[in-house]
This record gives sequence, structure tokens and C-alpha cells, in this order.
Amino acid sequence: MRVLFIGDVFAEPGLRAVALHLPDIRNQYDFVIANGENSAGGKGLSRAAYKRLREAGVDLVTLGNHAWDHKDVFELIETEPIIRALNYPPGTPGRGYWVLENSGQSLLVAQVMGRVFLENLDDPFRGMDRLLQEVSADYALVEVHAEATSEKMALGLYLDGRVSAVLGTHTHIPTLDSGFLPKGTAYQTDVGMTGTYRSIIGGEIESFMARFLTAMPQRFKAAEGHARFHATELLCEDGKAVAISPYIWEEPL
Amino acid sequence: MRVLFIGDVFAEPGLRAVALHLPDIRNQYDFVIANGENSAGGKGLSRAAYKRLREAGVDLVTLGNHAWDHKDVFELIETEPIIRALNYPPGTPGRGYWVLENSGQSLLVAQVMGRVFLENLDDPFRGMDRLLQEVSADYALVEVHAEATSEKMALGLYLDGRVSAVLGTHTHIPTLDSGFLPKGTAYQTDVGMTGTYRSIIGGEIESFMARFLTAMPQRFKAAEGHARFHATELLCEDGKAVAISPYIWEEPL
Amino acid sequence: MRVLFIGDVFAEPGLRAVALHLPDIRNQYDFVIANGENSAGGKGLSRAAYKRLREAGVDLVTLGNHAWDHKDVFELIETEPIIRALNYPPGTPGRGYWVLENSGQSLLVAQVMGRVFLENLDDPFRGMDRLLQEVSADYALVEVHAEATSEKMALGLYLDGRVSAVLGTHTHIPTLDSGFLPKGTAYQTDVGMTGTYRSIIGGEIESFMARFLTAMPQRFKAAEGHARFHATELLCEDGKAVAISPYIWEEPL
Amino acid sequence: MRVLFIGDVFAEPGLRAVALHLPDIRNQYDFVIANGENSAGGKGLSRAAYKRLREAGVDLVTLGNHAWDHKDVFELIETEPIIRALNYPPGTPGRGYWVLENSGQSLLVAQVMGRVFLENLDDPFRGMDRLLQEVSADYALVEVHAEATSEKMALGLYLDGRVSAVLGTHTHIPTLDSGFLPKGTAYQTDVGMTGTYRSIIGGEIESFMARFLTAMPQRFKAAEGHARFHATELLCEDGKAVAISPYIWEEPL
Ligand SMILES: [Fe+2]
Ligand SMILES: [Fe+2]
Ligand SMILES: [Fe+2]
Ligand SMILES: [Fe+2]
Ligand SMILES: [Fe+2]
Ligand SMILES: [Fe+2]
Ligand SMILES: [Fe+2]
Ligand SMILES: [Fe+2]
Repeated sequence: MRVLFIGDVFAEPGLRAVALHLPDIRNQYDFVIANGENSAGGKGLSRAAYKRLREAGVDLVTLGNHAWDHKDVFELIETEPIIRALNYPPGTPGRGYWVLENSGQSLLVAQVMGRVFLENLDDPFRGMDRLLQEVSADYALVEVHAEATSEKMALGLYLDGRVSAVLGTHTHIPTLDSGFLPKGTAYQTDVGMTGTYRSIIGGEIESFMARFLTAMPQRFKAAEGHARFHATELLCEDGKAVAISPYIWEEPL
Repeated sequence: MRVLFIGDVFAEPGLRAVALHLPDIRNQYDFVIANGENSAGGKGLSRAAYKRLREAGVDLVTLGNHAWDHKDVFELIETEPIIRALNYPPGTPGRGYWVLENSGQSLLVAQVMGRVFLENLDDPFRGMDRLLQEVSADYALVEVHAEATSEKMALGLYLDGRVSAVLGTHTHIPTLDSGFLPKGTAYQTDVGMTGTYRSIIGGEIESFMARFLTAMPQRFKAAEGHARFHATELLCEDGKAVAISPYIWEEPL
Repeated sequence: MRVLFIGDVFAEPGLRAVALHLPDIRNQYDFVIANGENSAGGKGLSRAAYKRLREAGVDLVTLGNHAWDHKDVFELIETEPIIRALNYPPGTPGRGYWVLENSGQSLLVAQVMGRVFLENLDDPFRGMDRLLQEVSADYALVEVHAEATSEKMALGLYLDGRVSAVLGTHTHIPTLDSGFLPKGTAYQTDVGMTGTYRSIIGGEIESFMARFLTAMPQRFKAAEGHARFHATELLCEDGKAVAISPYIWEEPL
Repeated sequence: MRVLFIGDVFAEPGLRAVALHLPDIRNQYDFVIANGENSAGGKGLSRAAYKRLREAGVDLVTLGNHAWDHKDVFELIETEPIIRALNYPPGTPGRGYWVLENSGQSLLVAQVMGRVFLENLDDPFRGMDRLLQEVSADYALVEVHAEATSEKMALGLYLDGRVSAVLGTHTHIPTLDSGFLPKGTAYQTDVGMTGTYRSIIGGEIESFMARFLTAMPQRFKAAEGHARFHATELLCEDGKAVAISPYIWEEPL
């Protein structure tokens, strides 16, 4: 089983990169998942952004701390293959995991959100314990949407040997540590952003930098510019991941 | 001019990796700099750790938010080639930059610390403005010791075209984004840790994970294990960086 | 039923204030509760501090984010009338509530800890829902150990009409808002510290101020000096609180 | 000299309380200052809110972390007696202090903002050192707009003996600690909010509580309801404060 996980798709450059490149490679993968929390102009998931992701070949869209930034998500999440973090409290719209199926093989995809420097959610560690008791599939991929590298590593090691892969998102910068944890789970601290890196983590440079220089609120604006496609690909066999590698494509200049 | 910047050297595995590998490659570089904030068992810089780094061929040791964790640093920093963040308030022991010289070429090395999710220091942006007005050298390398990728990118772009390179540290995970910013400054969000990755950012897995699972304080312990050497190398010519790449070595098993 | 709740007893001055004053007034109350998270020199609860609190007339000792700072607590909490926050994860030593009984009347005392600017604990709101379904008593007093006034008010209002009183602790400064919430629960945002106010929230002025001035770690030291006793008294009748007022005593000069 | 400092005026109930009550007592004070950071519906200072405060008898309006929430402030702050925190970086619109004069007596009013759990501003301690070297007046009142009680106490003690009074704001809950610091400066950790306390620190209960219960963003809404006027009055003589006390008024039911 081949899986492609596309990191935080950010605004128009991110959607453009997915639309331009994914169709060309789509048939090499059994499942394609994309984090879409920033696809609607950097803030949340709109109906239009969702449509573009799906039409390009994405099977499942994940969210994150920006899950609720665009109002369209509340309708979409009721019916479409979209997940938000599993460790939101009971009663939260949508669901925290999804089982994809293709040619008789199943892949459980779950997202947990870290709590360090982020929202006060329920415990992601015990949340995963419960999920893995309740749901099973041939393979499992867990997205850890978190800020602190320590929390991501801790979740990776906590799930090591119990799931096929743990992939981090949220920092919008890919990490150079894709590999295997001691008990065999594939792991990467961050997949990186799909969008323009001529930006500050996707945001327009001038206005975003002004936040740091002035300590005053600034209107958020997504950056335009040359786009990169950042994803991680997994090869899974006999119940576990056997290969993990970053997959990068750049928009032609 | 060839420069090697070694990321956060963590405890015994980090020191061992430097001692085992750096001597073999030392003569390829004009300058070697290492972040030593975690070299004394994970917490600060001791006299013994400093000595091992220097004997292996390190010219300058930098610190970070763990600068003051080991008491030896207060004496060392008065006389040795060691820098702490530039944007500590006036009156702080030590200094925030150093000018290295070799064969008639000079390299200014400065460290600034980010403030997002970290200490309440002085403004690192304006601090760098002042430094660059006051001090000049043939080349300049700025280490950004920070947590948030946004703040690191913002500092990189703020200094773009004004210094040779901006390299991030602190997260202990190397990033896959080494390259050039629009105006020519070499940049990488994080060099990564030199130490054992069979750990949680250098700390022993069991006790560190217990923090997340229990929300109770845990005794800190550095991890032992197979070490990796993570550095970034820079080639500088005609007043600017012309090449940047991650440099990785692993301890033989 | 008359209840006295004594705010965070801080180090020697706090213990001295309790020892000097509580015995004189003890017989006016059916129940006396004291927050002891800072009683052992500012850091946690020791056997000696616990003994002094109990001998002065305290029936139940509560903790907080400093619960685990002194190693004695791990034995004490197994057998003695001591509670830590209810919303620690499952498996945490000790318990989060206690039912006191006196002359045929029962008082449930629970502590929840806020999460804003504090630890990543379980949800205190839903934690209280569960507790109030499982345990009942004639009266209930909930201590909210939290930093943010918004979270304390939110918990007060969430529990309004369901418990007799909600009293805040942790900031070490008493608030001037003791009164009743709309549905009848007695409420005060913070009871204040019992200890010396010639300090920075109990800590020695010079070393604590140095943290703000230097951004460097400083050795913690409790302040000595003239002590104040800060408590809140509650009068409860017919199943609810009917009076709440701050109770303050000062050590003679 | 008699001074009245009115705590964070929050939305319509706050403005109503000021308009209803201040005119009746205005002639008892030489100077009246009000924190207006929440006067425009909870978010910033509008032209209309500013006008109501001034017409009721306020001489000087101060801001805080919500300084920039309403666009009107950018024009107002250029010409009107309004101050924002002194420790914003150089180049910030407006100014951080003001000297009021009346009948031959002058009062310096400055605001500093804390950094703990708030914005990354310049150092408020050294900022006050500089200001007190540059500007002098018969009396000086410093407003500390901060979250952490430790930082407020530290700033109070740092300025003790150097200014007439240090008054805290921002938590929206008045503290029961008005008094004198060891070297004679009048001090209170928080003046409290002027607005409706049938709220969560001024915000509508239902929507504000939903933030805690759901960890999802919620539309901010100011609460309506019975208003309280919370202020602190100072009597100053012979170069220093000689009396400090909370001043509270409630809207008739
Ligand atoms: Fe994102
Ligand atoms: Fe995110
Ligand atoms: Fe480090
Ligand atoms: Fe660090
Ligand atoms: Fe405390
Ligand atoms: Fe506490
Ligand atoms: Fe306010
Ligand atoms: Fe504020």
C-alpha cells in the first residue's frame, strides 16, 4: 500500500501546487491525504478549497487548530471525508478519525492535536489508546498537529509499534528526520507546508513581520508566490510501514 | 571560507559524536561553531564539556535558553570564546557576539533568542540592527535560537541580504529547508541536535514522556544511545554565502 | 454550618500565622480547610508543614500546581485528608475531593485546576459534572486553583446553583469580589495568600525581582517577614451558602 | 491632590456607569483617569466611547493590550489625552505617559504593560527608569497593565519610593490589597473593571464560557446588565500618596 500525505496546504499557492501536480502522480498511490486547515486563504477550509483538493485526487482532508476558521467547514464536516483532531471534547462537530478503503485494504487515519503552546484539549495520548482499542484497520496513520518537537516525539514514541506511521504537521517547515522509531513505526516530526515559502509560514511577509516588530495586531494576509508541494510518502506492507520519504515538487518558474 | 555550525550538542552522546567525528573533518573548515547549551548532561555548559568541544576543534561555543543551567558558565563566559543571546538585557554576563579571525578573514557570529514561547528578552530584531551598525566583519553568521518557525523565518527575512547566513537552533530536530532567502542570505530553520535521537529531544524517553502523561514534574535525565552529529556547512565567497547544506554523521553501530 | 477556607499558606510566615491565630477562632467553625501547596518553604507540602496545619486546627489540606514539589506529599496523600486537583489524569496519586463530616453535616470539598497559563490537565468543567453526579453531600465547596480571572469566573458560573461555594486560589492576592453568583453560589476569585506580603507573592523580593530584571533563572527563596492570615468564611444554611466574607488577621508587630 | 483612577471601562455598562456616576463626584478630584481599552464594545477605544468618557469628566484615557482593537484610536491618540503602554517599541503611535496639570500641581501618569502571558514588549522596568530620569512632576501614578500578580508586585516594589502610586489593571477583578509598599508608594494589584460583573470579565457569559467548553473560537460579545463602577482613589500630599482606597458604586436596580 502506497500512501501520500500532503502537508498543510496554504492558500492559493498551496491549492495551485496540489492542482498542478497531484493529478500527475495520483495513480501511484492507494490513498492521498492532505492537511487543509489553511487552504481557504490561510484560514480554515472552505467549500471551494475542499472541492479543489478533492478534484485533484485527495481522498481525505484533515484539519488542525485552524479547523474552525472558515464557516463552510461546519456543513462540510457532517458529510464529507474530513477529520478534525480526535482530542477535542465530546460534542465537537465532526470526527477525529476515518477509515479509508481501497482494493480490499483499509487505512485508519487519525489526527491528534498537541497541547503545548496550543489549545486546552483532552489528552491526546489516552485519546489514541481508546481509539486503537475501538477501531482497527490494516494500517494506521496518525497525524500529530503540534508545535513542540518534544510533544511530537513523545506521541510518536508512545504509538511506536502500534501504528504504521506518525506524521507531524503545523509548523509549516519540513523536518529532515523521516525514518523509523525503535519499534518500527515510520515517523517524521513535520511534513512541511504545501504553499509558497516566499512567506512567513504562508503569510505575507510584510504584514506578518510587522507583528514581531510592532507587537500590534496586523491584518492577516496570505502570501502569493512560487509554490512548493511538500508531502511524505509511505510504503506499507505486511501490516507495517517499510519506507518513508519526503516528497517535494516545485512549481515551474 | 568554509564554516561548520554544529547544532545543540546534547549530553554525553552529543559530546562523544563531536569528539569522535570532528577531528577527522576539522581541517576542511576555517571556522567551527557549536551550540553547547545542552552539553553538560543536557543542562548548560560545564568546564568539562567546554573542554571536550574545544579539544575536538570547536572555535566558538554558543548558548541559548539553557545558558545558565550549569554554574561553570559564569566563569567560562568571562574569558573564553563563548556567546549567549545578544538580546539579554544590559548587564547580563558575557557577550552576544564574537568576531572569529583566520588567515586574514573575519566572521562575525551572533546569537539572538526568539521570544515566542520563550523568555521575555529585549527585541532581537532591533538588537541585530544595532549590532550590524556597530560591528563589521567579512562575513556574518546569525544563530536564531527560537521555538516558533514564524519567528525564525521573520528574523531570517529581516536579516536577508545583510548577513551571510541565519541558522536556527533550539527545537533539536533538523529541518529540510536549507537554502537561500530572496536577497541571498543562507538560511535553515533548525540545524538539529547533535546527540542521540533515541530520546525525546535528547532527554531520556521514559521520564520525559511521563511529563506528558502525568502533568507532574519529573526528574530530568539525559538519554544514552547511538549518537548522530547534525551540523550545517556554509561556503562563503566574495562577501556572501554561496552554498549551504546539512552535514550529518552517525556513530558506527 | 460555618466554614473557613484559608488561602495558600506560604512558607514559615504562613504556617506561623495559622499556628498563632487559628486556634483562637477554631471553635467558631465546623470545618477548616487550608491550601497548603506552598507551605513547605514555598514549594509543596512536607510532613512538618502538614503537621503544623493540622495541629492548628485544619481539617483538610488542598494542593495545586505545586502539589508535587516536596517528596513527603507522596506518602501523606495516601492516608491523610489531603486533596490535589480533581482534573489530573487517571492514575494520579491521591484524590481530587473529600467529604468532611461533623455533627451530622457533610461538606464535599473538591479542587479543580485551571488550564489557562498552567498545566495541560483534563477538562475541569466536565470533571466537575462527573463528580457532582457521583458524590453528594449536604454542602459543596469547590476550590478553583487557576491563573486567569476569566477561567475562574467561567468555572464559578458553570457551577452556579449546583454547589454552595466556589473559591479561587493561586494568584496569592485576595480579590475584592466576594459575593453571590446569579443562581446563589457564593464566589470569590481569589482568597489570597496566608504568609508575608512583604514579598513577591511569598517569594523573597530581591531574588524574585531578579528574574524579571535579568531573564535568568534565580534560586527560589521564600520571604521572611510580618505575616497576614487571609481566609474566606462561609455561612451555609438549608443547603446553600448564605454569607461569604474575607477574613483577615495580621501578626502583631 | 485627589486623584480617581477608574478601572477598565467595559462596553456599554461601563460607559453607562461612568456617565451616570462620575459627574456627581467629579468636583471632589483634581484628576480623573480611566482605562478605556475595552470601552468600545469590549474591544478598544472608539471616538464615541472616548467622547462619553471625556464628557463625564475623565481627564486622561489609558489603554492596554486592547489598545489597537478599534481603528478610531489611531487618529485619537495623535491629538487627545490618551496613553498606551510606555514599553511598546520605538515608533509606536501615541505616547506612554502624560503630565496632567491643575491649579499649579502636576501629575505624571504612565502605563507599562507586563510581559508574562502577554505581548513581547520592551522591558517595563528599564522603561520606567528612563522615564523617571527624563520627566518629573509633583506626583507620579504608574498603571501596570498585566496578568501575573508576581510581575505586578515586582513592578510595584521596583518603583516603590520613586512614584506616588502603582495601580494594576487588566484582570478585570478588583483586589483587596490596596495599601502602601515599604518605601511609601501606594499600591493595588488590580483596580477592577467598571462594567457589568454579570459576565465573564465583561464578556457575555454564554459565548465566553463556550470557549472553555469547546476549545473552539467563539464570536466575542460584550455582556449587558447591571453595572458597577470600580475605581481607586488616591490622596496625595507633600510629594507622596497618603491615602489609597477602592471606590465602588453600583447602578441602581
Ligand atoms: Fe497549518
Ligand atoms: Fe496548525
Ligand atoms: Fe537546545
Ligand atoms: Fe534551547
Ligand atoms: Fe500558591
Ligand atoms: Fe498555585
Ligand atoms: Fe481590560
Ligand atoms: Fe487588558
